[in-house]
Amino acid sequence: MPYVNIKVTGDEEAPTKEQKQKLIEGVTKLIGDVLGKNTSNLVVVIEEIPMDNYGIGGLTVRERRKSKK
Amino acid sequence: MPYVNIKVTGDEEAPTKEQKQKLIEGVTKLIGDVLGKNTSNLVVVIEEIPMDNYGIGGLTVRERRKSKK
Amino acid sequence: MPYVNIKVTGDEEAPTKEQKQKLIEGVTKLIGDVLGKNTSNLVVVIEEIPMDNYGIGGLTVRERRKSKK
Amino acid sequence: MPYVNIKVTGDEEAPTKEQKQKLIEGVTKLIGDVLGKNTSNLVVVIEEIPMDNYGIGGLTVRERRKSKK
Amino acid sequence: MPYVNIKVTGDEEAPTKEQKQKLIEGVTKLIGDVLGKNTSNLVVVIEEIPMDNYGIGGLTVRERRKSKK
Amino acid sequence: MPYVNIKVTGDEEAPTKEQKQKLIEGVTKLIGDVLGKNTSNLVVVIEEIPMDNYGIGGLTVRERRKSKK
Repeated sequence: MPYVNIKVTGDEEAPTKEQKQKLIEGVTKLIGDVLGKNTSNLVVVIEEIPMDNYGIGGLTVRERRKSKK
Repeated sequence: MPYVNIKVTGDEEAPTKEQKQKLIEGVTKLIGDVLGKNTSNLVVVIEEIPMDNYGIGGLTVRERRKSKK
Repeated sequence: MPYVNIKVTGDEEAPTKEQKQKLIEGVTKLIGDVLGKNTSNLVVVIEEIPMDNYGIGGLTVRERRKSKK
Repeated sequence: MPYVNIKVTGDEEAPTKEQKQKLIEGVTKLIGDVLGKNTSNLVVVIEEIPMDNYGIGGLTVRERRKSKK
Repeated sequence: MPYVNIKVTGDEEAPTKEQKQKLIEGVTKLIGDVLGKNTSNLVVVIEEIPMDNYGIGGLTVRERRKSKK
Repeated sequence: MPYVNIKVTGDEEAPTKEQKQKLIEGVTKLIGDVLGKNTSNLVVVIEEIPMDNYGIGGLTVRERRKSKK
């Protein structure tokens, strides 16, 4: 029974409830299809990381967004 | 010095302060007893995941709880 | 740019190279579709955990498989 | 259904099969007792980290062990 | 493209925005220098763990701080 | 006492012992300097992920390297 952890940016970029349900559904189906495993107890955890706490290429996502404006 | 990470559902299912202290104490003692390691600096992190972000078998915990009512 | 971590059992239950490519492809596409994010740098890590190191319901997967024979 | 991840040093400090089973059993029981949750599908993953890859206080565990001889 | 996750205590011990930017910058530069990798898409995630959820040596950080007063 | 986890590609791209020691030393010093914390027990874990298990933008690192030849 695999375990999946998805980290995404939160704050104003946070996924909606519907998007989270779709991600959980989609990942669970994908793993069932590809690995042929019983997924009835497969755990998917989505963690929303604040934009000041998520760095890409040395800059926080918050700073990156500002520099793109 | 091992490191332990425990993910549980948060929101109304979040563990109480006392429960968290018991988990930290219990896991630390267990690892000391089983592995015979010095646990004076053993780190245990408990992460509370919102019920909309915790999926089991393709459904969010929030949806699972509703469907059981 | 989300980050995805998938933990599965290894040893004789380890996914094949093709299955790993399918999981990486599928998860990346899913996140792009659902969140509408640029996924050109999305990281997916698959970790294969030995069956003696993966516990479900208090038993290692190794033990669970034996008890099902 | 909580998820637990335990990182310990591997190589010659790796836990034995019996110790891993005891850790899985013990953590599962502890969480059941403390949180009163159904643990029949609780996942515990033990990851063995090579001593050259595990740093404490700025030194790898390998180096720390040498300096204690 | 490495992925880095830093867990620190939150609440009144949470790092400031400037400290988080410095950590992200510093870790990204360090990995670029040491591993010679292109770090333009290197992901660094900083997770702030509440002091009641962070255990060291069997006690929550909250309790440890109290006992030091 | 923060906890740091670094995931890098393994196999022929794995960091050397010296590089791992430098990463551990560097990250520990950085956190001490930026957060002013006692780092004598700070844990840094480096995980080497096989190139078939590390996906970027929908392709395994193995495939990406081939397509760049």
